[in-house]
Formats: sequence, structure tokens, C-alpha cells
Amino acid sequence: MKHIQFDHQKPLDFIAIGRLCIDLNANEINRPMEETSTFTKYVGGSPANIAIGISRLGKKVGFVGKIANDQMGRFIHRYLEKNNIDTSGVVTDRTGAVTGLAFTEIKSPTDCSILMYRDNVADLKLEPNEVSEDYIKQAKCLLISGTALAKSPSREAVFLALEYARKHNVVVVFDLDYRPYTWTSSEETAIYYNLAAEKCDVIIGTREEFDMMEQFEHTKKDDDVTAGKWFRYHAKIVVIKHGQKGSIAYTKQGTKHQGGIFPARIVKTFGAGDSYAAGFIYGLMEGWDLDQCMEFGSAAAAIVISSHSCSDAMPTVEQVTDYIRKHR
Amino acid sequence: MKHIQFDHQKPLDFIAIGRLCIDLNANEINRPMEETSTFTKYVGGSPANIAIGISRLGKKVGFVGKIANDQMGRFIHRYLEKNNIDTSGVVTDRTGAVTGLAFTEIKSPTDCSILMYRDNVADLKLEPNEVSEDYIKQAKCLLISGTALAKSPSREAVFLALEYARKHNVVVVFDLDYRPYTWTSSEETAIYYNLAAEKCDVIIGTREEFDMMEQFEHTKKDDDVTAGKWFRYHAKIVVIKHGQKGSIAYTKQGTKHQGGIFPARIVKTFGAGDSYAAGFIYGLMEGWDLDQCMEFGSAAAAIVISSHSCSDAMPTVEQVTDYIRKHR
Amino acid sequence: MKHIQFDHQKPLDFIAIGRLCIDLNANEINRPMEETSTFTKYVGGSPANIAIGISRLGKKVGFVGKIANDQMGRFIHRYLEKNNIDTSGVVTDRTGAVTGLAFTEIKSPTDCSILMYRDNVADLKLEPNEVSEDYIKQAKCLLISGTALAKSPSREAVFLALEYARKHNVVVVFDLDYRPYTWTSSEETAIYYNLAAEKCDVIIGTREEFDMMEQFEHTKKDDDVTAGKWFRYHAKIVVIKHGQKGSIAYTKQGTKHQGGIFPARIVKTFGAGDSYAAGFIYGLMEGWDLDQCMEFGSAAAAIVISSHSCSDAMPTVEQVTDYIRKHR
Amino acid sequence: MKHIQFDHQKPLDFIAIGRLCIDLNANEINRPMEETSTFTKYVGGSPANIAIGISRLGKKVGFVGKIANDQMGRFIHRYLEKNNIDTSGVVTDRTGAVTGLAFTEIKSPTDCSILMYRDNVADLKLEPNEVSEDYIKQAKCLLISGTALAKSPSREAVFLALEYARKHNVVVVFDLDYRPYTWTSSEETAIYYNLAAEKCDVIIGTREEFDMMEQFEHTKKDDDVTAGKWFRYHAKIVVIKHGQKGSIAYTKQGTKHQGGIFPARIVKTFGAGDSYAAGFIYGLMEGWDLDQCMEFGSAAAAIVISSHSCSDAMPTVEQVTDYIRKHR
Repeated sequence: MKHIQFDHQKPLDFIAIGRLCIDLNANEINRPMEETSTFTKYVGGSPANIAIGISRLGKKVGFVGKIANDQMGRFIHRYLEKNNIDTSGVVTDRTGAVTGLAFTEIKSPTDCSILMYRDNVADLKLEPNEVSEDYIKQAKCLLISGTALAKSPSREAVFLALEYARKHNVVVVFDLDYRPYTWTSSEETAIYYNLAAEKCDVIIGTREEFDMMEQFEHTKKDDDVTAGKWFRYHAKIVVIKHGQKGSIAYTKQGTKHQGGIFPARIVKTFGAGDSYAAGFIYGLMEGWDLDQCMEFGSAAAAIVISSHSCSDAMPTVEQVTDYIRKHR
Repeated sequence: MKHIQFDHQKPLDFIAIGRLCIDLNANEINRPMEETSTFTKYVGGSPANIAIGISRLGKKVGFVGKIANDQMGRFIHRYLEKNNIDTSGVVTDRTGAVTGLAFTEIKSPTDCSILMYRDNVADLKLEPNEVSEDYIKQAKCLLISGTALAKSPSREAVFLALEYARKHNVVVVFDLDYRPYTWTSSEETAIYYNLAAEKCDVIIGTREEFDMMEQFEHTKKDDDVTAGKWFRYHAKIVVIKHGQKGSIAYTKQGTKHQGGIFPARIVKTFGAGDSYAAGFIYGLMEGWDLDQCMEFGSAAAAIVISSHSCSDAMPTVEQVTDYIRKHR
Repeated sequence: MKHIQFDHQKPLDFIAIGRLCIDLNANEINRPMEETSTFTKYVGGSPANIAIGISRLGKKVGFVGKIANDQMGRFIHRYLEKNNIDTSGVVTDRTGAVTGLAFTEIKSPTDCSILMYRDNVADLKLEPNEVSEDYIKQAKCLLISGTALAKSPSREAVFLALEYARKHNVVVVFDLDYRPYTWTSSEETAIYYNLAAEKCDVIIGTREEFDMMEQFEHTKKDDDVTAGKWFRYHAKIVVIKHGQKGSIAYTKQGTKHQGGIFPARIVKTFGAGDSYAAGFIYGLMEGWDLDQCMEFGSAAAAIVISSHSCSDAMPTVEQVTDYIRKHR
Repeated sequence: MKHIQFDHQKPLDFIAIGRLCIDLNANEINRPMEETSTFTKYVGGSPANIAIGISRLGKKVGFVGKIANDQMGRFIHRYLEKNNIDTSGVVTDRTGAVTGLAFTEIKSPTDCSILMYRDNVADLKLEPNEVSEDYIKQAKCLLISGTALAKSPSREAVFLALEYARKHNVVVVFDLDYRPYTWTSSEETAIYYNLAAEKCDVIIGTREEFDMMEQFEHTKKDDDVTAGKWFRYHAKIVVIKHGQKGSIAYTKQGTKHQGGIFPARIVKTFGAGDSYAAGFIYGLMEGWDLDQCMEFGSAAAAIVISSHSCSDAMPTVEQVTDYIRKHR
């Protein structure tokens, strides 16, 4: 039984909308950033990572987003093209906005942090009239990322993309990706997250992210209750992640799937969620059952956290399959 | 057959959420404001006018909103109390915001304009955590007004109130009340208006307002199509106003009702929509059929446009009934 | 001996730069504004009042400022013209700014307050390139008002006007006019006030205003010390006002002049400073000795505080002379 | 004859006020930034570079500025300390501001550019009350840098420091350092630059910077005229730089000194001005004649442009002396 149906007539497999930015990863690891001296530049941002991941897995991928009119923006554009991602939906800002930056600090494999530059960033300047209905409708699947809801006009652009997707039978995946620093308040976040989630087919987030979304309800924070809530709207699949303890996926039909994690020689924890999402969505599009999707996602995550970068470490199908075989 | 069901157990008849402001009406009329010299102060703002109107018609009314911590704010508070409106949901701003102002200019009965002061206004600073679920759930009916969606945090406060209303079976009326000057763009407006309208039971607006909301659809601007769209969401009644040509009301059951206008000795056109809404909603709550609701609304409108003020001219049931009898 | 020298070749007597706004004076007095219901509209703003005052006294006056592109702005423009003030230096804002408002509340003759609307006001949007060197140089005297220093770009426009005045031998009078609500902090105010005052010929302010300007100095607040400080820069005359106790004027030559106040049937205290300044500057331009200038200013002040308005009550030479004769 | 007198009783030789930021220099040079992949992190900002330069030359140096409360801010703090710069005047921002960034791109030795991150930066948040009169008065010399005048409250902090310096006989050097991207308009820049320059003892800038400052004057852009203007205020020395053609220094006494440039194996042109200023000011403090100061500054500049970094390449006295000997 299929939990979710993709329209196989559509020419593009997958479009992500939202953040395109730059990761600057400290080359010297296992020390505070005060003591590092060089950084390597990568394309970053959760939806960018997922799009790159799904492209590496062999799908036809496009992106809708906004880049700065500078060297960083052009670097991102080139990198997407090099990764076979269609950039016809990527527009260039003309207001002097900058590219968002994330300096990563790896004090130890489990003590990592990020120093963000998010003032006046191009990605949040995407406007509704820069989202093409004709483009969105060509995709089997649209991924929206919570961070793109943080500010106008990007927020409105995402709601419009969501509307177009619904109208044209495009499956919508909502990767919650909650980053408190881009938001005014947790109340504001919860309100827009709920408005968006009501219209999505697949919702993927951590337990903490779902808790944030339920702050106005007086229910106990319970995975079964959370999943049940969304099935009363449009959701068909809800995935709740519990970090080291793995994840749990629910289907509207009532099935419940526990997923574990793979062993890994962890360099840093960044990128685990994005590679998981890429692997999981890939599985869904292949029509696999949920247990298999979750295993594939977990293996992709294990590969990425064993590497220095996020986007650049996204694995191919062969690498993931191989990893599963070796570590199952 | 009842088109809409109110929960008669609830202690409050009606709560409005949104704008509370001050009208400064030029006393010297039929000339440009450059030539006027004195103004009279009234409470204003579309939801304030409607709340006052419904209270005058004898219903138990409350308000959820924010007022400035100054003489204008206190004047509004007193006026609501004097009109038997419960103000337990009205909070006072502490950030130095001001009271919104509308200077009205009456060049001729049909050539009226408004000079607005909407920078840093208290009403748009209402926060989600200032909206009480316990309060909202006590009402049979909640009115939301489009202008309150124009800016954060008021926008989020309204979406939250809407959620509480839905959860507790409170009928939600959406008075579109579109004022371009408070919005960044017409695209932004359309996106939030649609998100809100999807969740409402009764939608009242002008043809132009519905056109604005349909800007991303490639349908022709047609009343039947418009009404039909909203019945696929939660709406039970849709009212489309055509100015001097009257209005048309649709029900989910498929009925369609044409409403005319009453003759009036027009002083100015301001306030016609608010008094119509007050009269129409009053009729719905009384369980009248739609033709009677529309006639009552139109008569209330005719009374208000024959007066100098909006809020202060809202009629009683006797006045409306009397007017209908005389002019039918 | 002349304390200050005006260049009598110059065609204009006096130009003021800065705030043009609207006073809305409650018609019902001796009560809080919560209990008033009508307001009368007047042109207001300290430099506007002074310019009108000096024009009424028979001098040739011009203005450099910015008005909103609305009915209030046009009302101001007309009123200046009607008062024989040259408006060739008054430009109209094109950004959607509004006219500043001051609602006055007269609880008792000595308990008056003002409710200000100063967000996004046109007067503070005057830009340096809207100040004409050719215009400034035509005046014998330029008045700058402290409030115009509160925000960019008006602040820069005033500094540029000051530079032009100095270059072309135009006497500069600085009316301190400190309104805390338009400023970010008292430190910020003091810094720009001092930068401006260093370049002025005549400085007029209250003791409290001079105290604010001396906050970074560890001197005791003493009129002699204050005046002495400014004579080490460019000042020739310093006037320090002590409210009900009158004022004291110092000259660079070392003379010191005590001025009293006239009896008045006070309606409200607003406008006293502006009419005093108008009368005092008029006297200076007539070449009177300082005692006579101060007496003339005090009489003008007494006339204005006995009236309902500020600008509209500015007296003629005959009225002032008459008042002095009757009350000396 | 001494052109300028330092008070040798004062315990600190030199304090700089203003920008502390981070340079991220592309390690791969002679290519556009789109093709670089790693960056090295250095302390940057014109006044920081000059302070480091003067400290390397053996003077006792302090800094007044504001750093972000993050890893970048702490890195700057440590680097200053490591370079024997007193940081008791360096405060930490508590508002969530970030550290300014400058990504440098070296396409060729003569085609270099900078990608700046200047939104919400800590250095421009320095407040007047964070500038200590007791600290400023301990220095023989204060350097102010034009960029710190770009925004409130840093602008006011600099004007206050300038006032304290004047009051306590601290020689003030103004390094114009005009960066258009931090300013609203060139008019605004000129107005504040002129207000500051009027109070300074030494003014150093490029011909283009002086042209910008003279935009409201109708003089021809001529070095003699420029220098003459400032000697009518407080300046004793004016240095006008002409890039590759060297520089020209004027003294109030009427002398005029032409300075050349040294040959160098140029890596990039950044930092030339800062190292020149450090060397020149060092010479002034040593009591050298102007020709010698200029030669020393030029040699320091030649050394820095032959290196990858700015701050980190600042030479010692021995290195400069050696360079002069070899290349004279």
C-alpha cells in the first residue's frame, strides 16, 4: 500500500524553496573558534542541502530562491548548476542584500555550534511574484523549509508556492528546520508553522520543533497525539525525530514505524537532518515502504556527519547502499 | 432553514478583534480640509464601529484590542464602557505607540476622503499572548477585520484568535476592510486574507476586495465563482457588496439573495459598510432569513451616512425598524 | 554700542529653518483631553511660530522647511503665504511622510500638556540638497531650532544651512527648543546641540536646556559660567530663561541684563518662548539695547499666553507697544 | 622647528577609536572569489590596523571600541592583547550585534576588491557613555577614523572623544577612511567629516576624500587650497595622498613636502594607507621632520602590500629601517 502518491507525469522530481547560503567551516577542528584560523567555504542552508542530496541520489531537482548579487551568490549559483540542479527559479537580489553565512565551530564531535550572519540576507527577500506557478506545477514534490517563513516577503512567497503546489497536485514536504535567531518570538513561529503545516502532505521535525508548534494547545507532548493532529488536516506522513534515539514515522492509515541510527565516526553533527530528509524523501519517491525510507535516510545522515562539510558530502545511491550493507 | 448556527449557551454574543482608533471629523463640510478649521473627535476603526453598532442593537459585546497609553487611548476605553462593551480584552500599550487617527474630509456627499495617521499605532501592536482563549470561547461570534492582519504582531494575534474560535465553535465573521496604505503590497494582502478567509464562516466584502484576493487565480471576477470558492473551505455565507448597486449574499446551501439600498440624505459615505455589517450580523444572530438581515443592514447604513459621525450614529433596533417602515 | 551687527544690504530680514507642523488645540479648556470633544487647527512648531511672529512685527521673512504632500501640508503653506512669509524655500515631501501634530490639553492655566505625533514626519525629512546657499545668503538673520537636529537628514540640512550662513555673514540665532521625545538620548542631544551652538551668534534657551548641554562637563550649573563658555566660541549674546523668574541676557562685551515678565491673564503657557524669541530678535534687528529687546519679548509672550493659539496670536508692533504701556 | 607638540607627561602614546573587525582573506589569489575555497581570518578595520602598526613600532597603545559578544569578538580582543594593546577601553556589545567582516578578493595585485558585511555591526554601536574622559586624557595622541562617524551612536561617541581630547590637550589625527557603503549619502558624509575635521590637528586622506568633503564649496580641487582651508581651523598638518604618485604634506607654518613611494612586490593594495598612517604618526611622535615621517610611512606601506594580511604584517622599526636602507 502506498502512503503517498506522486504524479509521475510531471517532468521535475523535486523542487526546494528557501534558503541558499554559505557555510564557512573551520578547518582546525576540536577547538573553539577563537583558536581557529582558516575556513573552507561550502554552499549551505537546509533546503539547499536537501536539494543537493536528492540530486546526488539521481533525481531531477530544481530550486526556487534568491541569491545576493555578489561573489558569494554567484558561487552558490555555480555550485547548484554543477550539481545538476535547475536554477531557472533562482533570482538575484537587486537591493544590496548579502548572502547568509554560517561559521561552524567544532569543539568536539558532540559540541558544535554555529555563528550566523542573518541580517539583510538575500534568501529572505524572495517575493511572491518571483514564484512561478508554471514552474511549481512541473514538480512531483515541493519541499518547504521553516526558516523561509521567518520574514516577509519570503514568508508570503512560500505560502504562495504552497498554494500553487496544492492546486496542481504537487506533494508538499515540510521540513520544520526551526532556527530561533531568525524569528521575533516563539509564538510568531508557532502561528505560521501551523498555518503552513495544515496544508502539507509530509511533515518532518524533531520532538522539540513539534512541541514549539503545540504551545497554544494544552495537550501533553506525545508523538501519537502530534501525528493524529496533522492527519486531521492534510498530512499523510508525519516523522518525529528524537536525535540519538532515532525517529518515528506515522502514516494516515495508522501505521507507526520506528527507525534507528547507524554507527558513524562523527566529525560534527551538522547536516544530519538534511541528509536524513534527502534520503527519506528519495525513498518515498521510489515508492519504498517507510521502514526502508527511514533506513536509507539514517545511512545518508551517518555518512554526512562523518565528513567535514554538509552539502559537499551528500552521498550517491551507491554510497548509501554500500554503507547500509556494511553497517546493518 | 438556518444558514448558520450560533451556540446559544455562550454568555457573550459578539467579540470584535482589531483596530480601535480616533476619527477627527471636520465640522465644516462641503469644502476641502485646507479650508476647515475645527474637528470633532469620535471613536473609530471598522471593528470598533461594528462592535458599537451591535451593542446599540442590544447584544452583549466585548472587544479584543490594544490602545495607546495616552489621552486618546483612555478616551476610547471610556467610550466603549459607556456603550456597554466589555473591555476586559482591551490592553494598554507600554511601548510608546500612538492612537491611529483618521481625519475625514467631506468635499461633497460623494467626494469624501481620509487622511490617516498609521505610523507606530497601538492597535497593530496587539500580541498573541494578549489574546485569551478563555475569553474568545465565551462568545457566540467573533469578528475579524482585515486591517488587523496588516502587520506583526497584530496579524499573529488575529490568526491565534481565529484558531481559538474554531476550536471552541465560535462563528467567525471576516469583514475584509482592505486599506491599502497599511500594507506593503497587494500580493502580501492577498496571501494573508486568503489564509484567514479559508477558516471563516461568514465573509463580507466589496467586489474590489474579492478581486484583490483572487489576483493569483486566473478566473474571471464573477460573484458566483467567488462565493463558490469559499464554500469549498469553511464558509457558510458570503456577502459581496457593490456600493450603490446594493449587495448579494450567497449561502452554502445554494441560495442567492439580492439586497438593495435605502434612500438617504447623505452627509458622507464613511461608515456605511460598518453599520451594514452590524445590522446584518445582528440579523444573523436573531436567526432571521438573509433577505431580512440584508434589509436591516442597509437601513442601518442609510442612517449612519445621514449623520456626521460613524460610531456615535450607530442606531438602535427601534431606529432601524422605524427607518425601514418609513422608507420601504 | 551694538552687540551684534546685521548686514543691512541683504534683502530678506529673517529666515527660519526647521519644523512646520499643526497644533490641534482643544476648544474645551480646563479639563483633561479625555473629556474634550473638539479641536481647532493652527500652524505650529517653534520656528514656524517665531517666523510668523517676526513677520507680524513687520519684517521680511522666509522659511526653509519641508511639508507633507497632503491637506495639512497645503494648509501650512497657505497660512505662511497669508502671513507674508516667503515660501520659496519650503519643499513638499514625496515619500508619504505626514505632518507633525501637537494636540494640546489645557487642564488649568499652569497645567498644560501636549500629545505629539512625530513618527514619519515631513519636517525631519528636509535634505541638505534642499537647502539653497543662494537663499540663505540673502538673509540678515537665520534662526535654527534644536528640534530640527533630532534626526537625519534634517540634522545635516541644518548644519549645512549654518555653514552657508557663516560663510555669507548671516547672523545665526539658535533657539534651543529641546523636546526629549524626538531624541534617542540626552547624550545624543547634547553632542549635536554643542556642535551647532559653537557656530552661532545668539543662543537662547532655558536653564534646563543649558544644563542638558553641559552634561559632559563637571562645572556647576551657573549662568555666568554658561555664558562665558559660549563667548569662547562665536557667540555674542546668550539668553538664559528662568520661567516665571524672567530671563538673563549676557553679551560678549561683558554686560549682563536682567529681564522680568509681564502680568497676563494666562490661558495656557504654550507659545511663551516662541513669542519671546520673536520679540527679542525683532528688537536686536532694530538695533535696540538688550533691556529693551527683553522687555519687548516679554510683552509679546504675555500677549500670546493670554490667547488660545500660538501662531495665530502673534502680535503686531502696535499691540506689543500698547501692552507695554499699559502694564509697565 | 616642531610642527606639532605632544604632551610627553601623558602615560599612553596613542589611542585609536572606532572599527574593530575581521578580514577574511582568500588564500587562493589571482582569481575571482567565486573560484576560491578557503579564507584566513585576521583582525581588521583601519583604526585597528593603525593601532597594531604603532604598537609594533614600540609605542604604548590603547583602543576605544566595541566588539560583538561572540567568538569573532573574543578573537579580536585576544589579538589586541597579544599585540600589547591596552583593551580597557574596549567594551562588549550586549544587543546581539555581529562583528563586521571584510572578505578580500585578489584578482591580481592591482585588481582587488572587498565584500563587506556591515549590517548590525558591533563597532558602530559604541555609545557616548562608553567613552571615558579619564582614559582619553591619558594619551598623547588620539586617532579617529571616518567610518566611525557613519552611524549613531558611534558617531556621537567619536565627537565626544574628540571633545575630551581637545579639552585635555591630546593631539587628534583624523584618518579620513571614507567607505561609501556605510553611509546614506555623500552629502551626509561631507557634513560630519567637516564638523570633525575642523577640530583636528592632523588630517590624512586621499585627494578623492578631500574632494568629497569640499562638495558644497565652489573651489577648484587643489591641494594648496585644501590645506589652506584646514589651517584656518585647528589643523597643523594636512597630508593628501595621490596613490601611486605619492603624497604631499603641508604644515601650518607654510612648508610643503613631497613624498614618493617605495618599490614593492605587491600582493594586494589593501592596508597601504593604514601602514602609511602608522609609520607617519610614529615619526611625528618621535619628533622627526616631515620628510622623514613620510619616508618611514611609505616604507611601512611597501612592506604591508607585499604580504597576505594587513594587521598581521605590520612591521617593526627594524624592518622598516632595513627596508628603507635596501630600497632608498
